[in-house]
Amino acid sequence: MKAVKPWLDDVRWNSDGLVPAVAQDAASHKVLTLAWMNRDALERTAATLEAHYWSRSRGKLWRKGETSGHVQRVREIRLDCDSDAILLLVEQIGGIACHTGHERCFYLKLDDGAWHDVEPVLKDPKAIYGDG
Amino acid sequence: MKAVKPWLDDVRWNSDGLVPAVAQDAASHKVLTLAWMNRDALERTAATLEAHYWSRSRGKLWRKGETSGHVQRVREIRLDCDSDAILLLVEQIGGIACHTGHERCFYLKLDDGAWHDVEPVLKDPKAIYGDG
Repeated sequence: MKAVKPWLDDVRWNSDGLVPAVAQDAASHKVLTLAWMNRDALERTAATLEAHYWSRSRGKLWRKGETSGHVQRVREIRLDCDSDAILLLVEQIGGIACHTGHERCFYLKLDDGAWHDVEPVLKDPKAIYGDG
Repeated sequence: MKAVKPWLDDVRWNSDGLVPAVAQDAASHKVLTLAWMNRDALERTAATLEAHYWSRSRGKLWRKGETSGHVQRVREIRLDCDSDAILLLVEQIGGIACHTGHERCFYLKLDDGAWHDVEPVLKDPKAIYGDG
């Protein structure tokens, strides 16, 4: 039986049972990532205060940082006015949120009709995840 | 004929032709809104440097602030590492991003198993949009 959690029922999950979740760095205020959560991911995020998401590509629950160590410690969980988007205020462990080794996923900037990588790779992904 | 715009083709539009777009205030760094863009909305945003979105509820293109005057002037357009989310850095005209009259849409905070409105209504929506 599903636990009665009215605050989880307040969320307007889409037809796939997901909502977009934005993570913002509590210190730098940079927007780090946009990922997706299902009910289980949001419940675990609130229970553990570590960001959990639903990986659409792998089709499974994913504790952010479970492989890389780049955990997001959650300071605040917000919901928007129409209850279909989440905002997390996080402490980004390791200072790297993106699997590419950038500080954050939003490193591509539109300029002169093209996307440019304008932020450094802080750590080689091979060093984060290993070669294989 | 659709104009050749490789930077628009670089975006991974979902099966509805949309991507989520986060707007962040360039001055306060607050995350204001999460809305959706189609190709046309993103193209117009880049061309005019005013945020345009696709309204899923109304099924039409929407220039943010067209009714309220609460335009978002765009300073930067970012794309994320897997090309399926947009981040806008904006100047929020009028200081109100949300149709509820709050500064931003993310005014609901999770606390003790419930969502609490923790930010003030700056202007009565009736005063923003009129009564009818």
